[in-house]
Amino acid sequence: MMRIAIIGTGNVAWQFANAFREKHNVEFIYGRNAKKAEQLAQSVEAAFSTSFNQIPRDLDLYLIAISDDQIESVAGQIPEVSGIVAHTSGSVDLTVIPHEKSGVFYPLQTLSKEKVVDWKKVPLCVESQHAESLKALTELGSDLSKNVQQIDSQQRRAIHLAAVFACNFSNHMMANAQELLRESELDFSILKPLIEETVEKALEVGPDNAQTGPAVRGDEKTLEKHRNLLENHARLLEIYNLVSQSIQDTRHE
Amino acid sequence: MMRIAIIGTGNVAWQFANAFREKHNVEFIYGRNAKKAEQLAQSVEAAFSTSFNQIPRDLDLYLIAISDDQIESVAGQIPEVSGIVAHTSGSVDLTVIPHEKSGVFYPLQTLSKEKVVDWKKVPLCVESQHAESLKALTELGSDLSKNVQQIDSQQRRAIHLAAVFACNFSNHMMANAQELLRESELDFSILKPLIEETVEKALEVGPDNAQTGPAVRGDEKTLEKHRNLLENHARLLEIYNLVSQSIQDTRHE
Repeated sequence: MMRIAIIGTGNVAWQFANAFREKHNVEFIYGRNAKKAEQLAQSVEAAFSTSFNQIPRDLDLYLIAISDDQIESVAGQIPEVSGIVAHTSGSVDLTVIPHEKSGVFYPLQTLSKEKVVDWKKVPLCVESQHAESLKALTELGSDLSKNVQQIDSQQRRAIHLAAVFACNFSNHMMANAQELLRESELDFSILKPLIEETVEKALEVGPDNAQTGPAVRGDEKTLEKHRNLLENHARLLEIYNLVSQSIQDTRHE
Repeated sequence: MMRIAIIGTGNVAWQFANAFREKHNVEFIYGRNAKKAEQLAQSVEAAFSTSFNQIPRDLDLYLIAISDDQIESVAGQIPEVSGIVAHTSGSVDLTVIPHEKSGVFYPLQTLSKEKVVDWKKVPLCVESQHAESLKALTELGSDLSKNVQQIDSQQRRAIHLAAVFACNFSNHMMANAQELLRESELDFSILKPLIEETVEKALEVGPDNAQTGPAVRGDEKTLEKHRNLLENHARLLEIYNLVSQSIQDTRHE
């Protein structure tokens, strides 16, 4: 059983505070905004404060769950404490936390306040240079998820960037499709079965083995037809050409 | 009950021949390759031939299920018949079929010979200038799927191009992610829950409303970090910059 403080009152803070409660004690919430800190504290029956000085010094874990660009400054204001000080970010280095027992506890999933998270399936990436802290974070992770991985800062950066390609950029490709369909008075939902099949296959055999379409087939006639259709869509044409070229440059022979 | 000939022996031909059998008579298979034509004919208990002259003239539907670039030439060799002559392609115009009762019967899904298709969910796009034929194709579609849509050639072209963005290009974005993870000795599967969540959300609220990530947030600091990580990956950096720019150019305010 760990005694835990949560630093932050956003989505990740809420989700972790509530998830930890099952097996651990969430004793303290720090937040800039008193109202928000109080709400979260009440929901998990913890104390709260808007002052760093009020943070109790003797807890086991101080989990910083705030936006990336605030982590370094906030970590610098957390007093010397006996426990682990860890952040939850995918893109911030371990080294921005000045405390001896610094760590990272990064959930590789989108967390929103409203949606119930199926923690068992969320990959939890843990990191610490301090062996005992790494063990403690790994165990804490295992209480939530079946997929806890020890990931160093370099790997975490790669994961974060890879997620931008696999998720943010894929979503944008779907948004481009939606735009083209709208122009022809068609609903995006017509692509749903095909998109589901595409993603299922990519996850099953790997996207490198799952590539289909005119570019990977070298079907120049269809590529040319598509370019003609996009002649008044400069932005989409540029994407079409670059991504098709990239598919051809990386195709397996 | 329709009497049907299938022109072709590939995945789409196999899937349709077997799907039609439940409510209709598949009586004839035409194929260039005698062995393949025989195999399919046996599987659905039909006659077969490698000669266009052997195609019976009095059937209700002649379905051309062959590769896109062969459709025009094959359609030109099908004799005058009493029934509908329709192809199954997303990217080929209706007009390449010279017969009076020409049509299109396009399944918007990836079909492979091995995998059982859940036809009820496959969008079937039907087209014909001939009112009676359009009605017959729509009814035939409804025997298979709950999602039959009358789609003209212009719309079908838009769907085909949109599918390249939503499926082929999304898959390539996942392949890029896989490549980045591999370099850090990480398995692509770590992204699985996040990808599933991303796609689920895009299909639920629309990809235009579902966009997340540093580009849409205008998080220049993270964009710069990512560019630095990609400084030795010219191809990925070009994609990163173009797609991030496109996300920013299209974001909702």
